[in-house]
Amino acid sequence: MKTKAVFYHAGCPVCVAAEQQVAGALDRSKFDVEIVHLGKAKARLSEAEKAGVKSVPALVMNGQAFHINHGADLSALK
Amino acid sequence: MKTKAVFYHAGCPVCVAAEQQVAGALDRSKFDVEIVHLGKAKARLSEAEKAGVKSVPALVMNGQAFHINHGADLSALK
Repeated sequence: MKTKAVFYHAGCPVCVAAEQQVAGALDRSKFDVEIVHLGKAKARLSEAEKAGVKSVPALVMNGQAFHINHGADLSALK
Repeated sequence: MKTKAVFYHAGCPVCVAAEQQVAGALDRSKFDVEIVHLGKAKARLSEAEKAGVKSVPALVMNGQAFHINHGADLSALK
């Protein structure tokens, strides 16, 4: 079974770089990678917060949030 | 040809989590992943700095530095 990985972003330049390089480099034979634009999918902000996401871009895998560089604080997207 | 990816860390708990989860999730059919412990390999601090690494853990791919959460500033390792 593949592990779920969610990449949260907000379309910012820092986010795009992280999406292309880091999210794009994940092993798709092991991970189902979902890309979520929190600027557009505001309904998923609470889910991201619960997963420990403080800023975007961030990658959530196995219950852990990994903030990759810093594009925008989650609070700025509300 | 595989792309080179270098994961810099300093053995900190934040680093270990990022190494296991993020560096461990990279597609090894596309990336040659090198793990560098900057606390032990101080000679490579300048290389990391040149790549734009400000703190560990960080992943450098295609000339870009991606800081993953925050374990320690590079300056603390000198």
